[in-house]
Amino acid sequence: MLDITLLGTGGGMPMTNRYLSSAIISFKGRKILLDSGEGTQVAMRKFKTGFKSIDIICITHFHGDHIFGLPGLLSTMGNSGRVEPITIIGPAGLKNIVNGLLLSISYLPYKIDFIESPEGPLGLVISENKLDVRYMTEDNPSTDLVLETLSLDHSSACLGYSFYINRMPKFLVEKALLNQVPKQIWKKLQYGEVTTYDGEIYYPDMVLGEARKGIKLSFITDTRPTKEIIQFIYGSDLFICEGTYGDDEDVDKAFKNKHMTFGEAATLAHEGKVNELLITHFSPAMDEPRVFKQNATKIFKNTAIGYDGLTKSLTFD
Amino acid sequence: MLDITLLGTGGGMPMTNRYLSSAIISFKGRKILLDSGEGTQVAMRKFKTGFKSIDIICITHFHGDHIFGLPGLLSTMGNSGRVEPITIIGPAGLKNIVNGLLLSISYLPYKIDFIESPEGPLGLVISENKLDVRYMTEDNPSTDLVLETLSLDHSSACLGYSFYINRMPKFLVEKALLNQVPKQIWKKLQYGEVTTYDGEIYYPDMVLGEARKGIKLSFITDTRPTKEIIQFIYGSDLFICEGTYGDDEDVDKAFKNKHMTFGEAATLAHEGKVNELLITHFSPAMDEPRVFKQNATKIFKNTAIGYDGLTKSLTFD
Repeated sequence: MLDITLLGTGGGMPMTNRYLSSAIISFKGRKILLDSGEGTQVAMRKFKTGFKSIDIICITHFHGDHIFGLPGLLSTMGNSGRVEPITIIGPAGLKNIVNGLLLSISYLPYKIDFIESPEGPLGLVISENKLDVRYMTEDNPSTDLVLETLSLDHSSACLGYSFYINRMPKFLVEKALLNQVPKQIWKKLQYGEVTTYDGEIYYPDMVLGEARKGIKLSFITDTRPTKEIIQFIYGSDLFICEGTYGDDEDVDKAFKNKHMTFGEAATLAHEGKVNELLITHFSPAMDEPRVFKQNATKIFKNTAIGYDGLTKSLTFD
Repeated sequence: MLDITLLGTGGGMPMTNRYLSSAIISFKGRKILLDSGEGTQVAMRKFKTGFKSIDIICITHFHGDHIFGLPGLLSTMGNSGRVEPITIIGPAGLKNIVNGLLLSISYLPYKIDFIESPEGPLGLVISENKLDVRYMTEDNPSTDLVLETLSLDHSSACLGYSFYINRMPKFLVEKALLNQVPKQIWKKLQYGEVTTYDGEIYYPDMVLGEARKGIKLSFITDTRPTKEIIQFIYGSDLFICEGTYGDDEDVDKAFKNKHMTFGEAATLAHEGKVNELLITHFSPAMDEPRVFKQNATKIFKNTAIGYDGLTKSLTFD
């Protein structure tokens, strides 16, 4: 239903042993990229994610390890034949910073739409084989994916992201028959549309079962832990979180540099009642993040330590 | 005397099998970097060149494969404790483009001096353990290294670079004695200084032998071949040249995209009477540049096909 691949798991500076922290979501054949540090496009080649189908790029913040791959990636997307517009989402100041990075590029064959610091949830809709972004309104609630952002606590304005796939309630034939709904409008009602037929108004709940849980993915980097994060990630199927430091003794560094330890990420996962925690964004000083795994698992058992190329598939139960 | 390492040998886009075309010169413990595409700083880590001792960065042109690594590299140099100013040399518009790339960086602990499209030779002088850049004047001819630039024929304003190490003539004791030069001023004369002693003026040629050939290195990428290049590279000990296409049949592509084939690079080497040709900047479509080597060697025998990490040492005969 939704696949997410860690393109890189490093923080701070690009190193030889891992790519910089970035992830790519694949949803119904279209893609959303989260951050683009120096080398992210090389990781995309390595993990064969392709360039053409990225419709949305979400930027967490403007530190180099999260954005210095953007100008090269956007060039390569142009060279790959992209002509459809793309949307870049990020903190306030985004357009100015990205345009600065692109100053040397005389021509890109597609348009960039910028959304700075979105004020409410964004609805992502598959339309004409492309993932379009719309502000959600009461008149227009229908969407394939809901994107929300949260302000984090880092040394630079920083956004966390969550993605939610709605799951339609089950269609119940018995209920439709019981409510004497004409067969001609079953499909419309199944897809949530209030429908008039032969002068009568019919409502979706006349044919649908109970609401069902969708799929929730959250992506939090870089930040100190905050109460708002717990609420934001609550009930996520997968919570991808920075863990710049594995060792509990590095908590002072984490505090000073506005990052987290594995233990702090695990505490958020526990309090946010998520299903699985996936830790990423490792300090260049940490060669083998896995050796610190139990600093997370002793607090939150279902923890995975990220590595470049790791893919998780999220499906409805 | 002078070492040069190819940090990368790829052109166009960063790939998984080679880093982008870039080279680093090491001279008396100080360094000059030529171009910085996405990933150049990772290649520097891989080949252990260090970051702190780079005093000069020469940019050939503003295509992404030659500059998109700059903001990350300059950040990393700042994180490595660099505080001394650095000089960046490149075509007109350099300062604007680099400042655009650096928009997101709130602070660098060192100053950047920009030299756009230098009008004459630059003298590079080791001073206080740093390579300083000075315009050469008749009053101030003394220099450790001479840097010259040439406008190339590419789809974007582009500079070729050459570096020349002067070699002082031999000090001849017999000649000094014959010319009755007092021993007290031998050293000053040996280093080229006109010296007055006991009311008499003494000239360096009273103690020095014949002029001796220095060391010349030239670096030409990206461009079509031109007559001016032949003159510019003339007599180089090492001529590093782009060869985007190995196959002679790709000459139409080379013409259209303003690049060269191996054969065209070899023709320049032959006509420029250089000692050795080193080809770099390979098209992403060319997996194994070595299979096309004889397209160069049939025209210019002493040709090497570059690879990432290749180091050449240039010394006086």
